[in-house]
Amino acid sequence: MVKNYKIIVSYDGTRYNGWQKQKNVESTIQGKLEALLTRLAGKEVTVQGSGRTDAGVHALGQVANFRMDTELSEGELFQAMNQYLPEDIAVLELKTASDRFHSRLSAVGKTYCYRIYTGKAKPVFDRKYVWQLPERPDVSRMRKAAAFLPGQHDFRSFCGNKHMNKSTIRRLDRIEIVEDGEELRLVFEGNGFLQNMVRILTGTLVECGLGERSPEEMKEILEARDRSASGQMAPARGLTLVEVRY
Amino acid sequence: MVKNYKIIVSYDGTRYNGWQKQKNVESTIQGKLEALLTRLAGKEVTVQGSGRTDAGVHALGQVANFRMDTELSEGELFQAMNQYLPEDIAVLELKTASDRFHSRLSAVGKTYCYRIYTGKAKPVFDRKYVWQLPERPDVSRMRKAAAFLPGQHDFRSFCGNKHMNKSTIRRLDRIEIVEDGEELRLVFEGNGFLQNMVRILTGTLVECGLGERSPEEMKEILEARDRSASGQMAPARGLTLVEVRY
Repeated sequence: MVKNYKIIVSYDGTRYNGWQKQKNVESTIQGKLEALLTRLAGKEVTVQGSGRTDAGVHALGQVANFRMDTELSEGELFQAMNQYLPEDIAVLELKTASDRFHSRLSAVGKTYCYRIYTGKAKPVFDRKYVWQLPERPDVSRMRKAAAFLPGQHDFRSFCGNKHMNKSTIRRLDRIEIVEDGEELRLVFEGNGFLQNMVRILTGTLVECGLGERSPEEMKEILEARDRSASGQMAPARGLTLVEVRY
Repeated sequence: MVKNYKIIVSYDGTRYNGWQKQKNVESTIQGKLEALLTRLAGKEVTVQGSGRTDAGVHALGQVANFRMDTELSEGELFQAMNQYLPEDIAVLELKTASDRFHSRLSAVGKTYCYRIYTGKAKPVFDRKYVWQLPERPDVSRMRKAAAFLPGQHDFRSFCGNKHMNKSTIRRLDRIEIVEDGEELRLVFEGNGFLQNMVRILTGTLVECGLGERSPEEMKEILEARDRSASGQMAPARGLTLVEVRY
């Protein structure tokens, strides 16, 4: 019997060309999952993710679903997936979902975390998971700038896809900036995020923190609805998709 | 003027064939440091470490010293080293030491930490820094076994070098076993450690924890003064040299 499985997936994105399967690109998370499940099922299995993550971006709790006809129990399928997936991709949870469950369309919210390291020593063990800045941005300026962002807005200025022809309106529920020693963590919660949105928001907030922009500019950037109004995109390695809510 | 520099070095040992320079082996930590310093000095510089670390073993605070004639200030030398070293090797501290300072001979103690992961999910982000065990060892049995070890003993049974022709007597000051969620951390403090000693101690303690040996055997293993009496060597990836004391 074909069942609809929901999985929570964690991955170190360093080695991958992002979540989404691409033609002629071997290494994507979706591609690895589909190849394995297709092998286990003996026929093609398509894996639907809650959304894409960029090349080099990590996940603690990406969610995906797939339909599959297998005699394996949930426990056996869970174990087989973890055994055959590479050591930088893990299935944290697997269960049968209702047939209507769709990891992208059913999602009501997501949390991302962006890690910035501002210490003097090279972050040897975290080097693939942080954006290393030579100078510490002023957190109070960053918070002032971030305060303009929560709410429902057209975030087109923070969308990396210039040809986006669908709505760029999203609701950002919260931006929290946590200071933890030599690290800053920016936590973003919202109902959905545009392509590169968290990385462009982070890059722009850092420019405010470094005094390259005034925090008040954030309002104008939002209103411009133009990618050229916002700041540089922060590197992929600092970003992690923490959670998808349903 | 030739000065004797003391450095504290941190590295992710995953990619390296250990600390010590070897003929025809490109990638060692000592080799990387010497190649860089020789280039900066314009003549050969030899780097003396506090001790070797095995291939794949990490360091938070390895200590080394080298004699070098340079016009660079300490700050400039520090910066140049961090700039030109690969991103998995960092110099945390650099200062001029007295001419008599010798990182190995002057050392009075060392701390190592061994990380064991016993969770069900694959440790995607820590995979290079932990030993993953499918079963959680009984920590009270491990502590019982560990209690036989502190003090000055002949640790020959825990020495990986069968041809060791120097003294195998060492003083182990402390073994602490910390439970932290799905992780166990074994902290070893002593005046010095034999080749592979921490890894063989860890492997043997785990065998006690899994019920494969009784904790009381530890006494006999020590007395045997024979490597074949002790247990398997734990994998390199879980081990980190935390600190060297002077």
